[in-house]
Amino acid sequence: MNDKLKPLREKIDAIDAQILDLLNQRARVAQDVGHVKAETGAPVFRPEREAQVLRGVAERNPGPMGNAELQTIWREIMSACRSLEKRVTVAFLGPAGTYSEQAVYQQFGTAVDVLPCSSIDEVFRATEAGTAEFGVVPVENSTEGAIGRTLDLLLHTPLTISGEVSIAVRHSLLTGSGNMEGVTAICAHAQALAQCQIWLNNNYPDIERRAVSSNAEAARMARDDHAIAAIAGERAGVRYSLGTVKANIQDDPHNRTRFAVIGSLHAGPSGEDRTSLALAAPHKAGSIYRLLGSLAQHGVSMTRFESRPARTGTWEYYFYVDVEGHVQNEAVAKALAELQSNAAFFKVLGSYPVSLT
Amino acid sequence: MNDKLKPLREKIDAIDAQILDLLNQRARVAQDVGHVKAETGAPVFRPEREAQVLRGVAERNPGPMGNAELQTIWREIMSACRSLEKRVTVAFLGPAGTYSEQAVYQQFGTAVDVLPCSSIDEVFRATEAGTAEFGVVPVENSTEGAIGRTLDLLLHTPLTISGEVSIAVRHSLLTGSGNMEGVTAICAHAQALAQCQIWLNNNYPDIERRAVSSNAEAARMARDDHAIAAIAGERAGVRYSLGTVKANIQDDPHNRTRFAVIGSLHAGPSGEDRTSLALAAPHKAGSIYRLLGSLAQHGVSMTRFESRPARTGTWEYYFYVDVEGHVQNEAVAKALAELQSNAAFFKVLGSYPVSLT
Repeated sequence: MNDKLKPLREKIDAIDAQILDLLNQRARVAQDVGHVKAETGAPVFRPEREAQVLRGVAERNPGPMGNAELQTIWREIMSACRSLEKRVTVAFLGPAGTYSEQAVYQQFGTAVDVLPCSSIDEVFRATEAGTAEFGVVPVENSTEGAIGRTLDLLLHTPLTISGEVSIAVRHSLLTGSGNMEGVTAICAHAQALAQCQIWLNNNYPDIERRAVSSNAEAARMARDDHAIAAIAGERAGVRYSLGTVKANIQDDPHNRTRFAVIGSLHAGPSGEDRTSLALAAPHKAGSIYRLLGSLAQHGVSMTRFESRPARTGTWEYYFYVDVEGHVQNEAVAKALAELQSNAAFFKVLGSYPVSLT
Repeated sequence: MNDKLKPLREKIDAIDAQILDLLNQRARVAQDVGHVKAETGAPVFRPEREAQVLRGVAERNPGPMGNAELQTIWREIMSACRSLEKRVTVAFLGPAGTYSEQAVYQQFGTAVDVLPCSSIDEVFRATEAGTAEFGVVPVENSTEGAIGRTLDLLLHTPLTISGEVSIAVRHSLLTGSGNMEGVTAICAHAQALAQCQIWLNNNYPDIERRAVSSNAEAARMARDDHAIAAIAGERAGVRYSLGTVKANIQDDPHNRTRFAVIGSLHAGPSGEDRTSLALAAPHKAGSIYRLLGSLAQHGVSMTRFESRPARTGTWEYYFYVDVEGHVQNEAVAKALAELQSNAAFFKVLGSYPVSLT
């Protein structure tokens, strides 16, 4: 066997030597970029540029390498080169090892310094104070909807959203025994039950489904009562020592949690961007509908609309709206100017490259 | 500024195009390697080969790229190429996001499937049953010594250790307020206090130090009593909402937890290897000392020696010994043959490449 493998390994070694040389060439150019940026005070991290590089790699990839694997490699290459210019510090909702930390590395690669915080408030504080250049906070969770605290804090922070990261969330069917013997009820948060309903209809149509306060609570119940199965993430399964009957049972394989990257940096246009807004309108039938008419008139697509009761202040509701495009795009700029002149409250939370996944 | 940056970015784009081409060349050769291995039934993952590639990258690196960053990039390159041959599944002590999961990615890169387990026993079971090709289990923890359950299970498993991974463990000084005002005692596990003693002597020589059952317990105490500071990891600080007075206060910056990679694969010699053994000797003064004489006589260095009371069976103690070199090295083979003939119990737990960090 070694006779056949040896020449192949020598080929790989020769290719690796060339890649090593190119990576160091790339690092030297990145250092030059750092010098130019230092002269002008320009920021080291340019999310629109990194998004373009990652998209370009996938577009030009002839294979057999997979695009996702290549983008992982490039994220590390850019992270390593960037750390030669300057290492950035990123605050996130800790502890280490949460989906939030995963979101940090998905945006910045691993050559960064991380600052785990014990609350979303603290992530904002650390980033506003400059202890961290960026913060990563959850904004939307497929199982529990919008993250209210993040939305509240975004209203009044001087920080801007300069990126979004989307992380896959998976549901498993879990029991104490790891099988369904003697199980009479399947428990989970109502949204998780809804997200798995096709699979449940196909596989356990006759077992009662019961909505409980959270998936973690369902997992706790399953630990204590072997007549109960829970739908929850692997994390809850491990915490409550449950066995997995079946992993990845969500009907939509693209069930995700979305994070926002916040900081004082304003991302430039990358060619494929999104803009997040917060709005309030006088409490009058149809006023929001009329406001949003400005978007439609200028051909700007809305990708998300979320309302949230105001906790303080003059307005009963705040509306969180995501639209396609960058504030520097002409159509978006016109639509937003019009929207702003009619809204009672108007804030651009940020324009940023659409996440890759 | 854009006038100066544009040509530099074009240079980077040109370099990236070459790297992309080389990576796909490498992937095609890796596919050929996969075909050769498939003919002979040889394993896809060769830890000794990957260790050699990673060491080679660091040895040949002229800079300015850092070795650690390059090795992170290469780990992902090899992981991506390997996943084109076959994707491996790795079991670990969950939940996701622990140091154990970090150890999985440090050994295999991120292009693997992971299987989080709720106990060390379950990691062994899943790997023995073939649900996972490999398992990653903690063997040694600088703050709490050997992981007893792993050592017990290693004694009788048919699995072999084919790799080791070492992960940095950091201590922080934590309080409810984030500062030391009003603090009269610093609490931690005795080993953590010992590991930070130089720093404590230099900075807080007059504050009482109190050993408690664990660092997490110290963190809980600090949350409830603001006269107490805790030494613990960032994870505990986040869990108990403590502020960081000072991070990384351990005297030895190389304080680490060590993990073993277990599976049915036997790693070949990589040129820089370690062999783990389990031994028992008749309970007689000096019998272990005489046993170990075989190592010294053949010039084999011992890097670790650990004794553990037997929970079952004939012997009062089992001894866990790590030596430098691979079982296929002549001196090691001779020493072990001699050792085996004199020991009451003798088992080679595995030979594997020494970890990079």
